[in-house]
Amino acid sequence: MVFKYPNGQEYKPQALVQRKLQASSQSRRGMSLEADINVANEYYRKEKIAVIYKKPTPIQIVDVDYPARSAARITKAFFRQASTTDYNGIYQGKYIDFDAKETGNLNSFPLKNVHEHQVTHLQAIMEQGGLAFMIIRFTQRSETYVIWANLLVEFWQNQNVERKSIPYKTIVDHGALVPNKLQPTTPYLDAIDTLIQTEKRSPNL
Amino acid sequence: MVFKYPNGQEYKPQALVQRKLQASSQSRRGMSLEADINVANEYYRKEKIAVIYKKPTPIQIVDVDYPARSAARITKAFFRQASTTDYNGIYQGKYIDFDAKETGNLNSFPLKNVHEHQVTHLQAIMEQGGLAFMIIRFTQRSETYVIWANLLVEFWQNQNVERKSIPYKTIVDHGALVPNKLQPTTPYLDAIDTLIQTEKRSPNL
Repeated sequence: MVFKYPNGQEYKPQALVQRKLQASSQSRRGMSLEADINVANEYYRKEKIAVIYKKPTPIQIVDVDYPARSAARITKAFFRQASTTDYNGIYQGKYIDFDAKETGNLNSFPLKNVHEHQVTHLQAIMEQGGLAFMIIRFTQRSETYVIWANLLVEFWQNQNVERKSIPYKTIVDHGALVPNKLQPTTPYLDAIDTLIQTEKRSPNL
Repeated sequence: MVFKYPNGQEYKPQALVQRKLQASSQSRRGMSLEADINVANEYYRKEKIAVIYKKPTPIQIVDVDYPARSAARITKAFFRQASTTDYNGIYQGKYIDFDAKETGNLNSFPLKNVHEHQVTHLQAIMEQGGLAFMIIRFTQRSETYVIWANLLVEFWQNQNVERKSIPYKTIVDHGALVPNKLQPTTPYLDAIDTLIQTEKRSPNL
């Protein structure tokens, strides 16, 4: 019996197993994309290459106990919806702003991984002249790409009439692969440099 | 009996009363500097002048109840020390980063209102070519100023051998007054424009 992906491509379990073996031999084994980016950001700050932080998760605080000022304890709180992306900062004098997502899919990045407010925010950053992008990791391939936000926006706006995902091939063609390095393991600013140098833009822009 | 300020200036209760009356007649009556800045940021985003947000307060979450996925409830958490300033974003294509502080003092801004990590972070932003500054409100005067971070850094680094505060006069001379407007009430980017246009720098830079 032959399994096929929605795009008609044949499912190849052997290739998949090999990819998984490759992934497990890499130093980032077991580390999430978020952890990798945090390590990269620490490195960038230490080496004075960039100043980029992940924003704290927004929390709605309801009740707090104050047994002592130094140990105020939150006893009731809820997660709030963020209104922006997770990361921002400054690189080479430029404002940068991005989100990072992992997908277990092999051949596309599903748009359901992205929220409306993130797309709106990235659009606002583009309008202001900032560098707005997405970091996307295909976990089964152990490959991480950076794409400009305008590519995301384009697929997002067309998702009701066209496909609800960005094809892997489009990301490869219009994005930049984050190289594997020892330190940091996920040097995503290298991929940003590549995008800037090659002036890669989204297909219709 | 005559009261005098540490700098020898005479205490004038009448002037103070008048200032308070002025303050209470303004539309920002009862609003904190933080609330004013949030209103300004909303206005700037709506008018596509800038995209600036206050960062969420960092919280260390210890226990969470999951009665239902949509209503995850945090039952034990603690406030964490922030490693950056409270605000950042993009204005006219430039990365901007700042903190905002109020003081009840009349004639100086005490450096104890500022934390070491905030100064370190603002220095890192300056090194990267970003616009780093402080918004300081003298609540008794109902006056709000913007100063470049290098003025703050200079006084911060000398506080063990010199004074532990920035004189009001220094802030007036080297900073820019935020004008009073109807919308937004605290248009602090107007003061940034003034600082950029007049190329005001800190005394020794």
